This record gives sequence, C-alpha cells and structure tokens, in this order.
Amino acid sequence: MQPQNPNFEADLRAAFAKQAMMRAFQAEILEVGPGLTVLGMPFLEQFTQHHGFLHAGAVTTMLDNACGFAAFSLMPAGHEVLSVEFKTNLLRPAVGDRFRFRGEVLKPGRVLTVVEAKAYAITEAGEKLIASMTGTMIAMAEGV
Amino acid sequence: MQPQNPNFEADLRAAFAKQAMMRAFQAEILEVGPGLTVLGMPFLEQFTQHHGFLHAGAVTTMLDNACGFAAFSLMPAGHEVLSVEFKTNLLRPAVGDRFRFRGEVLKPGRVLTVVEAKAYAITEAGEKLIASMTGTMIAMAEGV
Amino acid sequence: MQPQNPNFEADLRAAFAKQAMMRAFQAEILEVGPGLTVLGMPFLEQFTQHHGFLHAGAVTTMLDNACGFAAFSLMPAGHEVLSVEFKTNLLRPAVGDRFRFRGEVLKPGRVLTVVEAKAYAITEAGEKLIASMTGTMIAMAEGV
Amino acid sequence: MQPQNPNFEADLRAAFAKQAMMRAFQAEILEVGPGLTVLGMPFLEQFTQHHGFLHAGAVTTMLDNACGFAAFSLMPAGHEVLSVEFKTNLLRPAVGDRFRFRGEVLKPGRVLTVVEAKAYAITEAGEKLIASMTGTMIAMAEGV
Repeated sequence: MQPQNPNFEADLRAAFAKQAMMRAFQAEILEVGPGLTVLGMPFLEQFTQHHGFLHAGAVTTMLDNACGFAAFSLMPAGHEVLSVEFKTNLLRPAVGDRFRFRGEVLKPGRVLTVVEAKAYAITEAGEKLIASMTGTMIAMAEGV
Repeated sequence: MQPQNPNFEADLRAAFAKQAMMRAFQAEILEVGPGLTVLGMPFLEQFTQHHGFLHAGAVTTMLDNACGFAAFSLMPAGHEVLSVEFKTNLLRPAVGDRFRFRGEVLKPGRVLTVVEAKAYAITEAGEKLIASMTGTMIAMAEGV
Repeated sequence: MQPQNPNFEADLRAAFAKQAMMRAFQAEILEVGPGLTVLGMPFLEQFTQHHGFLHAGAVTTMLDNACGFAAFSLMPAGHEVLSVEFKTNLLRPAVGDRFRFRGEVLKPGRVLTVVEAKAYAITEAGEKLIASMTGTMIAMAEGV
Repeated sequence: MQPQNPNFEADLRAAFAKQAMMRAFQAEILEVGPGLTVLGMPFLEQFTQHHGFLHAGAVTTMLDNACGFAAFSLMPAGHEVLSVEFKTNLLRPAVGDRFRFRGEVLKPGRVLTVVEAKAYAITEAGEKLIASMTGTMIAMAEGV
C-alpha cells in the first residue's frame, strides 16, 4: 500500500507518544509500515480482570491502537484518525509475559479505512493468538 | 428477569472488587439488578488518547464490564463469566467530568448471554450518549 | 429526530420499491417515521437453512434494510444510503408465520449514522425477539 | 487443522444440499477442507438492492454459510452448527459476474468456533475483495 504522507512514520510515532494511556500500559511501537502497525506491552497486574488475566478491555485498547495507527499511516498529512467502531473476539485467556498486537489495513479509503488486527500472548513456550479485531477508522482533517 | 443465584449481588460485588483494572480506573458500581449493571468512573487523564479524550479502549473496558456483570447476575451460583466477543460503536468524543456505563441483558441463556450497553459522558450540562456495545458472554462452571 | 428531507417518506418508499430482493422476500413497509423503519415479511420456505428456520442471512437482509431506511429517513434530499458494516446477534431460531424488523437510529450524523434494529418472529402465541443488529450507515450524495 | 469427523465432507455437502436458500441463490460448493469452505454464486438480479448491486444481505448470507460450514468441518459427527453472531464489513459495491466466498476457521473450539470469511466479486478484469466477516459459530449435538 502506498502512503500519501511521506512523513507518516514520524507523525505516527509523535501521535503515539501523545497517548497517555500508552504510557500507563508501558506500550511500545514494534514495527511500522504503510498500512501496518505492530505494538507491544508487558503483562501488568494493575490491568487484569478477576481471574488474573489481562483485561479484555486492555487487549482491545491495544488492538484499537494497532488498527488506528495502521489506518493513520495511509492518510494524508494533517489528518487525524478516530475509531468509528470495532469488534473484538476473545479467543484464549490473555495470559503471558508480554503481548504483541498487529494491525494491518484491509481496505484503505479516503474517508473510512477498515483494519484487521490480531493479539498474541508471548511466553517462553512461544506465541499464542488470543484475540482478533476488525475495526472501521475515519480520517478527520485537523482542526475540523 | 429472574436471578438463579440468590446471592448474585454480593457475588457480583466480590468479583468486581477483585478486578485490579477497576481500581486503576477508580470505577464503582452505581446500580445492580437482575440482568442489569451500571458502573461509573471519573475522567482520568492517564487513560486518554492523543486528543485528550478518554481512550476508546477505556470506554470499551467499562462497557465490557457492564455487560459481563449484567450477564453474571443471571447465572447460577458458582459460575464465572467470560467475554466471547463484543462490538463497540463510538458515537461522540469521550469528553466529560464523569462517565456512566449501563449494561442490560437482552437475551439470557444457559451457556451464552447477549447484553447491550451504553456509555454516557456527564458534564454540568447533562449526560450525552458517547458509545454503545453489544456483547456475547459465556458462563463457565468454576474450576473448569 | 428532525428529518431534513420533507419528502423522506415518499423517497424512502420509492427506494424500497426499487429493491428486487424485497420483492423476492414479499417484504413490506409496516411503519415509517423520522429515524424509524419497520418492515415485515412472511415465512418463506425457499429462504430457509438446513433446519427449516428462516436463514440468518435472510433475517440479516431485513435488519440491514430496516437500519438503512431508518438512516435514510434523516438524510438530506438527494442522498443515498449504503451500509458500512453491521453485526447481527442470532438470539432464537427464526421460526414463525411472519417476521417483523424494527430499525431505529441511535445516533444520526452528517456522514455516518448508527442504527439499532431488532427482529421478531410472529406466531399465534405472540411475538418473540429472534435477532438484533447494530449497523453503521453512510450518506452518499447522489451521482458521486 | 484436524477434523474429528472422518466423513466431514460428505456430511457438509449433505447439509448444504438441504438449504433451500442455497438453491434460490444458485450457490455451489467450490472447495472444502478441514476448517475451510469456499462457496460460489452468480450475479442474480432478483437479489439486488436499489442501486443494482447484490444486496449486502445476500453477501452476508453467503459469508455466514462459508463460516458455518468451515466450522462444521471441524465438529464431531452428529453435531449441527448454528450462528451465534457475525459482523460484516462492506468494502466495495457487490458488482460482478460471479461471487466467491471463502471461510476459514481462526479458532476452533469444543463449543464455540470463530471463523473469518472474505467475499470477492469476479469480473473479466479479475477478482476484487468486496466484504469481510468475522463470525462465532456454536456446535449443537443433534436432537438437543
């Protein structure tokens, strides 16, 4: 996929750095490309649910960001991205040392971009798929 | 709707109290009934996205819990609830002093329960609908 | 909700009449209002799945139309409506003499409108909720 | 993925043959494997919406079946499959001579199976992705 903003990676990293919630989650960008964003975060006890798994809402937060930034990477300079809707399927308990979230654009568009994302739990034994998302993202001209 | 567990409210409050993420969000239970859970949380700068709105993932975390506990309230004693899937529609920016999340069971079931939830932002000017969720929850016998 | 097109009902009925699939389904408009559309159809053996229930896809077709026309009723004259995405939860088997599908706008918007819809099976014993949908609809200026 | 029912393909084809709606759609099975089903259908004017595109509900019907049969292929003998929920993203207008629908299991399970599906429009110019689905399917022991 062809980026329209030659500085998309720098702009994406700047937008990520402005998200307070990503700092709270100790999240980091693992990979960026046109139509692609991969994020990582450690297991954090303070964001667990009542069985001690990472909360489905925390998993969704990261998947949403992986989708949003993947969409953002294809938008023209000076645009912002907002989530219209997303759906998460929880496939396995979110148990692991670290987590990886990979968002990839399925269908770019001038207004709406559809993105698919997958979440993986990482342990010494390897990686396991724990959740999937399909999301619709909208491009907003800044200041609008 | 008819609860099967006469102690559903105490069990629900105990499960809620065990969620570390609810403490991180300074969340509280506002109302509990058979097939109903209403939760609240303040605006917290540390869980915002890059425009300063409460993150869609934080909104989803609370909607997921409102759905999960609403489903839990109708389950037999000794069962736990897990989210199978949920879909969030983000309707307006999550800007407000406080937020309210209301989950109500649409269709209870022995295995699967479908729940609808709405999120509201509260300011001095009143309440605004900011997001909606439909979720599917599964009952698991404890220890299974 | 306030319609922007004073002729919304006539335009809606004209668009409905142009849908070949609605004729195949022997579907009819039961009620129209600003932000609201209620449709009906009989049980038709030719659109069943392998247990003899009305196919989930047929139920979804009608829910999608109830959502789409409910959104259309609030759009300016000279606009068309397309479905961006929708999610269906199948709550009970689609068994009945007739079916009713009620779509109501949750959040209107200049570009995107979010709609909720419910499907009911009708028998001599009464009405039963069989499915629910949340959908996102987009307004397109005609000829674009 | 490992099928549990050695006769899964014959059972799948028999269930498909019992769906009246698949006959109405002139649908056919293009490919079957463990965790995989590919279906095809021609463009049929009687199942179009008001712009002359194949109706989103018809596309969803076929995606739902591609998901359902893909899940069915991994279930034990003597089980039936029902759709719990599905979400469709409409990516491009459903215009073409023929359509292809590919469902592949993402996560099999004893009770619930999550499936992803894609729809393609086929013209002389080639194939275009027009829609995607994520669905949750449930296994029911026959006669229950």
